[in-house]
Amino acid sequence: MKVVLKENERIDNLEINNLKIIQNVEGFCFGIDSVLLSDFAKNIKNDALVMDLGTGTGIIPTLLCAKTKLKKVIGIEIQEEVCEMANRSIELNNLKDKFEIINDNILNLNKKYEKNTFDVVITNPPYKKKDSGILNENDKKIISRHEVTASLEDFINVAKEMLKDKGEFYMVHRTERLVDILSIMRSYKIEPKVLRFVFSEKNQPPKLILIKGIKNARPFLKIDKNLYIYDDNKNYSEEIKKIYNK
Amino acid sequence: MKVVLKENERIDNLEINNLKIIQNVEGFCFGIDSVLLSDFAKNIKNDALVMDLGTGTGIIPTLLCAKTKLKKVIGIEIQEEVCEMANRSIELNNLKDKFEIINDNILNLNKKYEKNTFDVVITNPPYKKKDSGILNENDKKIISRHEVTASLEDFINVAKEMLKDKGEFYMVHRTERLVDILSIMRSYKIEPKVLRFVFSEKNQPPKLILIKGIKNARPFLKIDKNLYIYDDNKNYSEEIKKIYNK
Repeated sequence: MKVVLKENERIDNLEINNLKIIQNVEGFCFGIDSVLLSDFAKNIKNDALVMDLGTGTGIIPTLLCAKTKLKKVIGIEIQEEVCEMANRSIELNNLKDKFEIINDNILNLNKKYEKNTFDVVITNPPYKKKDSGILNENDKKIISRHEVTASLEDFINVAKEMLKDKGEFYMVHRTERLVDILSIMRSYKIEPKVLRFVFSEKNQPPKLILIKGIKNARPFLKIDKNLYIYDDNKNYSEEIKKIYNK
Repeated sequence: MKVVLKENERIDNLEINNLKIIQNVEGFCFGIDSVLLSDFAKNIKNDALVMDLGTGTGIIPTLLCAKTKLKKVIGIEIQEEVCEMANRSIELNNLKDKFEIINDNILNLNKKYEKNTFDVVITNPPYKKKDSGILNENDKKIISRHEVTASLEDFINVAKEMLKDKGEFYMVHRTERLVDILSIMRSYKIEPKVLRFVFSEKNQPPKLILIKGIKNARPFLKIDKNLYIYDDNKNYSEEIKKIYNK
């Protein structure tokens, strides 16, 4: 399959099932958080109907297609040129039957899909509040990193609307937003069931959290053992190597 | 100072400032959680007015008297015979000027003290929901361990009522209740500001959490580095030895 690359674009090999992702080096490139989230969600049921909110390059659906036996995954992304690029990755990976991109704001999803129809909603949303941090980046990075076009509450509310009863919600986010995340999830009836903290190094506080919630489930939280990115010698930990198929 | 011990009681030396605590071996004895909580709260300001909700043996106020320069600490405890025992510990430790016990349900505190008057509220509340777990223990243990006489929401609500604006709330609890804790704290305007996870061993999930909240503060959560009770050789970690003055 021959796919045209545009200016500033490059192809990254995901080293799993020979899958590749096109990225724009001037835009927002996918990070380890999306890779960890896809791995965290790898036990979703066979034939699941999955929605990825804010899919960006399409990294999460692409990895889920390799790691799971999902039936279909829809990725919604507000940035038109990012959608166009993700569609070229879908072609490149020959995933047209399983992975579809929608170019829209997540707030419009309820006009396109019936409520309560998805088995799984997954998201690596913007981490920063609209009014926090420096906003002098280029537009693409701002939309991917800051809650400009939709807030955390919007992402969770849309997830709740799309999910079936007992449907599963997976998210990666920063630990500093933990209170927001858990209280908003509960108020929207997606009960947080599993948390996993991600540490760069053992003696530092965790920076990221992986969260699994279940719609309309009873309260009881399980905390998984810690995930360390680096070992004591500053090399990737054994678990990270495994996730990256190294 | 000579203090009479009753049946099933023993005196434990806290190994700090020669302080001692009387405990009933058939009742609920203080555990490492109270010791860790007192240490977590050791940086409260000088001359603080402190309230300990559900003080039990009085372990937390006794340790705070040793570790801080608080002005006065009130411990409220619903079980009459536990209060009587804690009062003998106060005598034994010569802490009458700084540590006072109230025998009442925490729900009656607002009849005894003016609202918004305490600098610090601290608590090691019952960990289990009223209807969870086995309830065939003796009464003393049930009241200390289960939310029979007051729920988690009651503890947090009373803390909010007693605390001054920007007053500090400290609690130890089990990780499985994290969602309850964070969402209830936020809804009662005690914003969770610091979390510290307590692990028995490095490769297990955390069992306990230490939480600091501030009344009417802005959202921003900091997660402290992990606290490990045991090291890789199953001995107490260096930090635990330091906390226990070993």
